[in-house]
Amino acid sequence: TQLTFCVVGDGEAETGPLATGWHGNKFVNPKTDGVVLPVLHLNGYKIANPTVLARIPDDELADLMRGYGHDPYFFEAQPGDDHLEAHRRFARLLDDVLDRIVAIKTDAESVDADAVERPRWPMIVFRTPKGWTGPASVDGKQTEAHWRSHQVPLANARDSEEHLQVLADWLASYRPEELFDERGALDDRFDVLRPAGERRMSANPVANGGQLLKDLIMPDFRDFAVDPDSDGHGGPVVESTRRLGEFLAEVARRNPDNFRVFGPDETASNRLQAVYEATPKQWLGDYLPTDAPDPMRRQGQVMEVLSEHQCQGWLEGYLLTGRHGMMSSYEAFIHVVDSMFNQHAKWMESTNEIGWRRPVASLNYLLSSHVWRQDHNGFSHQDPGFLDVVMNKSPEVIRVYLPPDVNTLLSTFDHCLRSKQYVNVVVAGKQPEPVFLNMEEAIAHCTRGLGIWEWAGTEVPGSEPDVVLACAGDVPTLETLAAADLLRQHIPELTVRVVNVVDLMRLQDEHEHPHGLSDRDFDTIFTADRPVIFAFHGYPWLVHRLAYRRTNHANLHVRGFKEKGSTTTPFDMCMRNDIDRFHLVIDVIDRVPSLRARYATLRQQMVDRRIEAKAYAYQWGTDIPEVADWTWPDAGATTADAKAAARATGGDNE
Amino acid sequence: TQLTFCVVGDGEAETGPLATGWHGNKFVNPKTDGVVLPVLHLNGYKIANPTVLARIPDDELADLMRGYGHDPYFFEAQPGDDHLEAHRRFARLLDDVLDRIVAIKTDAESVDADAVERPRWPMIVFRTPKGWTGPASVDGKQTEAHWRSHQVPLANARDSEEHLQVLADWLASYRPEELFDERGALDDRFDVLRPAGERRMSANPVANGGQLLKDLIMPDFRDFAVDPDSDGHGGPVVESTRRLGEFLAEVARRNPDNFRVFGPDETASNRLQAVYEATPKQWLGDYLPTDAPDPMRRQGQVMEVLSEHQCQGWLEGYLLTGRHGMMSSYEAFIHVVDSMFNQHAKWMESTNEIGWRRPVASLNYLLSSHVWRQDHNGFSHQDPGFLDVVMNKSPEVIRVYLPPDVNTLLSTFDHCLRSKQYVNVVVAGKQPEPVFLNMEEAIAHCTRGLGIWEWAGTEVPGSEPDVVLACAGDVPTLETLAAADLLRQHIPELTVRVVNVVDLMRLQDEHEHPHGLSDRDFDTIFTADRPVIFAFHGYPWLVHRLAYRRTNHANLHVRGFKEKGSTTTPFDMCMRNDIDRFHLVIDVIDRVPSLRARYATLRQQMVDRRIEAKAYAYQWGTDIPEVADWTWPDAGATTADAKAAARATGGDNE
Repeated sequence: TQLTFCVVGDGEAETGPLATGWHGNKFVNPKTDGVVLPVLHLNGYKIANPTVLARIPDDELADLMRGYGHDPYFFEAQPGDDHLEAHRRFARLLDDVLDRIVAIKTDAESVDADAVERPRWPMIVFRTPKGWTGPASVDGKQTEAHWRSHQVPLANARDSEEHLQVLADWLASYRPEELFDERGALDDRFDVLRPAGERRMSANPVANGGQLLKDLIMPDFRDFAVDPDSDGHGGPVVESTRRLGEFLAEVARRNPDNFRVFGPDETASNRLQAVYEATPKQWLGDYLPTDAPDPMRRQGQVMEVLSEHQCQGWLEGYLLTGRHGMMSSYEAFIHVVDSMFNQHAKWMESTNEIGWRRPVASLNYLLSSHVWRQDHNGFSHQDPGFLDVVMNKSPEVIRVYLPPDVNTLLSTFDHCLRSKQYVNVVVAGKQPEPVFLNMEEAIAHCTRGLGIWEWAGTEVPGSEPDVVLACAGDVPTLETLAAADLLRQHIPELTVRVVNVVDLMRLQDEHEHPHGLSDRDFDTIFTADRPVIFAFHGYPWLVHRLAYRRTNHANLHVRGFKEKGSTTTPFDMCMRNDIDRFHLVIDVIDRVPSLRARYATLRQQMVDRRIEAKAYAYQWGTDIPEVADWTWPDAGATTADAKAAARATGGDNE
Repeated sequence: TQLTFCVVGDGEAETGPLATGWHGNKFVNPKTDGVVLPVLHLNGYKIANPTVLARIPDDELADLMRGYGHDPYFFEAQPGDDHLEAHRRFARLLDDVLDRIVAIKTDAESVDADAVERPRWPMIVFRTPKGWTGPASVDGKQTEAHWRSHQVPLANARDSEEHLQVLADWLASYRPEELFDERGALDDRFDVLRPAGERRMSANPVANGGQLLKDLIMPDFRDFAVDPDSDGHGGPVVESTRRLGEFLAEVARRNPDNFRVFGPDETASNRLQAVYEATPKQWLGDYLPTDAPDPMRRQGQVMEVLSEHQCQGWLEGYLLTGRHGMMSSYEAFIHVVDSMFNQHAKWMESTNEIGWRRPVASLNYLLSSHVWRQDHNGFSHQDPGFLDVVMNKSPEVIRVYLPPDVNTLLSTFDHCLRSKQYVNVVVAGKQPEPVFLNMEEAIAHCTRGLGIWEWAGTEVPGSEPDVVLACAGDVPTLETLAAADLLRQHIPELTVRVVNVVDLMRLQDEHEHPHGLSDRDFDTIFTADRPVIFAFHGYPWLVHRLAYRRTNHANLHVRGFKEKGSTTTPFDMCMRNDIDRFHLVIDVIDRVPSLRARYATLRQQMVDRRIEAKAYAYQWGTDIPEVADWTWPDAGATTADAKAAARATGGDNE
């Protein structure tokens, strides 16, 4: 058993993520999991204020800890206390607490892991003076046992003789002459205090989880491929993340001890419920008879709590101790953990430079229920801006993927689960969407990170296209293909190149990101001078930010989410943000010089079809059939039928 | 007294921000503040899982609520219960609870506001079945009193006859024939249930706080101006936010009932402590004798708790109920509330379109302790990316300001406090920094939003400059001026224009943002074809994202924070990110075609000075004097002395 001695500052204890973290004990199995011993360090102050938990009566604090499910043990030391005696007192208390933990673990050992009950884990309330053993006062103001001892109790030791003397007295109070020898080294007598071998922090696998990391035993993701219709691209229609769930179930099955799936009550809503065929949710709260059909047990590899903070914290801890995992979230609400993500990314970047630190598994996000499909929820659920937050972090540690269909999603996730020392962000839809590539094509596409879909374009080999239609993300890809279809019908002489981007980092300069395309490659794919109409999953300016140095940047016209959202139909969402097929055709007419006035009539037809589609959506609450039932022309006829049937999407609680 | 009947879903109760929100009662004055009555609605489930608080024993839950400082009242209804009887039971319980609240308020009335004690506010645990009165089961699976009743209990009523019948039976169970007349209107008998006049939600000032909003009584911010040295720009050296604190103190003094300052234990650290001369922190936790010298009372206009979430929530509530306020935060940690900010911005954007909704005061952020000055804290505290999150929201509601000195900060903040229906983000330093503009110039500069600093440049009237040095943010402005000084000395023939940007939105297209510059204005200021070296406070790509459509974009070279941080000296931070004066000179040599090879020697000197400055910083832990003591040449001689004295910065707990 591993025990985490977790010291909680009483300042930190005021933060939201920590406040809910106490409830983690409703998810810990006393037989099969490690133990967390929380030590609430009530030193009474934060930067410049008393702390809340230090300023409520002891009985209220005891109630709070019991309410969190803990059994509190109280310890207190006063400024004047003898230090050694305080140490001895604490050692005795700690012995009691550890005995209690051993008793809990021993009890649990005799019971089946699925039958253990949640115990009342002990915790310690550790009340000591802030700045204990520091200067009692500075400038006549109390400093020890006061917030003034925070961080820099003596700001002016450099400039003030008086402060310098306080500093000297303070340091002398530790009697350095007894601690150090004449060379300034710690006296040999204290060697016994220095940890040796694996007890040294850098060598201790507990603090350097990469040492414990074992590669996942991976199923072959190609076994989960969904074949496109025999007669072409664009079908059948599949809920991509549901299929991913089947793959993840097999990953969970093969790695029962070091792979977990975390989610803020959204594992099923994000359509990963197949995972439950392999392993249940772990739940140590009370059970009701009506829970019987649910995939909840006292031991399982899925962790669900309605706190993105808690999921993120659990996942970080799980990875840093040498295991593997992933977290799914609604796209908009992953912003809840922006700050935690930032710190984890910074930590990874910093540890990359530390020789003894071994790589840990990547932190994998699956963002679903995304901006373009909020048929039930609406504007509050529409925010693809986590990508912008992610892209601000160091290129060495971040990866962003936008697989357009199920096979690219499987290939991408296989890659992410095998990777180390990254944060991988994968955005994928849970709604029925077409299969565009067979698995072989998908693997090649994901390996390249982007590619020309020659079957979708109308290029003439040996000459440059008139226009490039680029896309990234599942819904933008669908709209781009529908636009390509319209252009093929209405402007047959126009040569169109269709480019799909899976790995967003490919757009960046190769000097900026290890995945970045060279300028030569970029120019070859996006041309040096043809208009590029780019339909993007997120905020459009992100693409400009990535590509502003490219030769053809002035010809790059990006459509994406521009904060025009509501609870509305999928196609109305596209229209509100001008990323719909009709508007993409308009953009082509506007941007290709040879078209413009010559195709004013077609342009007007496109405007009219938008008006018509909008009116239909408002009247019927669903999309106009010509849009909703559209499939790529060479998709099988069966796909059109299946698409019509799959149009209605389930609720979040499916 | 106003009472907020606050229903807390047991799913939401698992989130971090809510979990810590319970402690808000340690900050509420029972005499002078309104009352929150929390009703924890334990319906037992969230989307697809049981909830934590519904699955702990009642005694544990009671302990938890008592630990939060509440006095819990329990109510429970079962699926089979008679509805009217349940209503009656709840009405009786609510009467008891309201009596208790009245008793608390009555007790408080007889006591001085500064002497009231924190009472145990009542709260209600309200246990009812999820989906109560909905279909008992669907497809043979329990639905009422189960998570399956979440959101869409019947996903297939459109496609399945059986589901349609369940839907029909469910709706019929409410006996619509007794409720509606033959026209489908609610029967006249029920008129009595409909609120009238101000009780209607749209007309109720409680729900439409803009109706209650009174403009702040503002002091004249010009009274707080710091005059530049008599002999020119660039001195004296001032902690800008400290002066802002003096202004805010006067705002607080003049508006004791409708202006509050919120902060996550950082009001003093961000140097706003002058506010305490006008009003104390409000604190209803326990007091110790040692608190006596501290500005803490049971009633005050400053709210401090170490939770950005709680501060944001309080401030939102305060604004939405018709008051004014601001929140200060360390720049990096404002990311903690990204998601809450997003929702508030979306709410404001949506309400802009609702005719009856009256504007509320803007939500004002002061971000200090910013990325460029983390002398004590380091990499974890360095993240200027909140600006990127903010800029993704609708241009109608967001404003971002980067005042370069104290006078522009005062002018900006005066503007923000007077504004309505925006989110204003102001980034300003708390470290000693020069005064560049007198108040008259500052007002003009802020009104324009950006401007040419002709005193800093070397332009020849009537001809275009050779290069534009642009800057936004206090530290980048200082480095830009130092670079301009170097260029003046070493390349006297070079004509330089210095442009400072306060209002970041000015960089955007006028079609994208109401503050956006026209292309003509932009080209006039930034030229159509000269190199622009832009030193930017945040991530550099943000400027590209804002300006990518401008004529001269290909000549725009932005320096900013590129995630190279540490606990280091201010100038080393600049050098790590290539935004330092020496590198800006190198950029000018590299980008101005007429310089390049002709100034290879100067370029090398600049490289050498970076090497020298870095070596000095690493050896001494402070910046090389030629940098640390540099002042703009026409600043007064007194400034140089003052600067040297002010170099050492205080701790966070000053």
